[in-house]
Amino acid sequence: MAGEKNAGLVLLSSSMSPFGQRCSIALAEKGLTHEYVEEDLGAKSDLLLHSNPIYKQIPVLLHGGRTIIESLIIVQYLDEAFPGTRSLLPADPYERARARFWADYVDKKVYGCASRLYMVKGQPQVLPKLEMVDILKTLEGELGGKEFFGGEQGFGFVDVALMPFATWFESFDRCWGVGVAEVAPTLAAWAAQCMERESVSKSLCSPKEVYDFIDEMRKDLGIE
Amino acid sequence: MAGEKNAGLVLLSSSMSPFGQRCSIALAEKGLTHEYVEEDLGAKSDLLLHSNPIYKQIPVLLHGGRTIIESLIIVQYLDEAFPGTRSLLPADPYERARARFWADYVDKKVYGCASRLYMVKGQPQVLPKLEMVDILKTLEGELGGKEFFGGEQGFGFVDVALMPFATWFESFDRCWGVGVAEVAPTLAAWAAQCMERESVSKSLCSPKEVYDFIDEMRKDLGIE
Repeated sequence: MAGEKNAGLVLLSSSMSPFGQRCSIALAEKGLTHEYVEEDLGAKSDLLLHSNPIYKQIPVLLHGGRTIIESLIIVQYLDEAFPGTRSLLPADPYERARARFWADYVDKKVYGCASRLYMVKGQPQVLPKLEMVDILKTLEGELGGKEFFGGEQGFGFVDVALMPFATWFESFDRCWGVGVAEVAPTLAAWAAQCMERESVSKSLCSPKEVYDFIDEMRKDLGIE
Repeated sequence: MAGEKNAGLVLLSSSMSPFGQRCSIALAEKGLTHEYVEEDLGAKSDLLLHSNPIYKQIPVLLHGGRTIIESLIIVQYLDEAFPGTRSLLPADPYERARARFWADYVDKKVYGCASRLYMVKGQPQVLPKLEMVDILKTLEGELGGKEFFGGEQGFGFVDVALMPFATWFESFDRCWGVGVAEVAPTLAAWAAQCMERESVSKSLCSPKEVYDFIDEMRKDLGIE
């Protein structure tokens, strides 16, 4: 593809992982070709275990023999190591801090709450349901009238951080009865618009795959 | 003080908070004077609640009417907003990613485990004790033969992130029998050396204050 740069990058990831998906989206937004290695999380490769001995988790980015770990750190690294590519973080220090705050919010709150879809065995799911409604409304407020969380710069760091969880929206509805289109219609429209980007659509799995995965996890854990 | 810059900065913090202490250390390292506001966490100020409506937590940095939240984001902001001051993050993209990884490790692992000193009511403390030994050895390995985690650049981002927890070392010993000097002697020596810096010694509370605080929390929670 014209303008693509093959920089000797290797991404160890898993197609179902929202964190791995962030890295795929960022690489695509930047036009950086790379080798993609799908990890079997039930039988992790020696390369993964050797590259990330601390957490033994994907995603891992390998670049010229060096290892970069943690999805948001990987996205920031791509911004800083390839300054000639489209920036995902804004240039202004305050706007950068603000983007980091909201990306961190996605990790702490969206993922923190969404993961309770299958991690709380036999516990009533009323609290996480109410919490997710609050989280969605908070994100809706932050998005405001902007087209993207990246504001004038367009699709940016927070969009990359959050978008993989948009494929979980259907599961929020099916498991908790939280309809994102009703609770946070602007956020639902944002997700639909992001999905029109090739960088996004090619990096994510379908809402059905997410639901089936969650359903399987819930069955394994004995959660109704 | 010569070379200090008063940039209209206000730090809302709490003297016992390792996260607030990070910000104080970073401001001091950079020679940035600021107004310090001690928050009573039992009766948070309207300024704090208004500035950080999402988490209602310290530390919060106010700068020219703008609000920056989360300690590691604040430290990075100070690096980026005041480029004329001593950098805490390295310049090289890979080294920056590496520093971010280890600072994040401190948040996830050191704080995650240390906070179990008083948060697990009535539960045997064998697992967190073993985990903390592993964490300390991992940090010892990362420090290696370096004087500071910041390597050639000296006292840096990871040092700022971790150092507040050095005043918890005595509590690890008294509560869990984990002697940092025995488990990770190089790390203990690093902490002693960091404590010689005015930026550090003036920003931290004493190990006894930390222990008394933890002891009080444990008593409140009914933990032996």
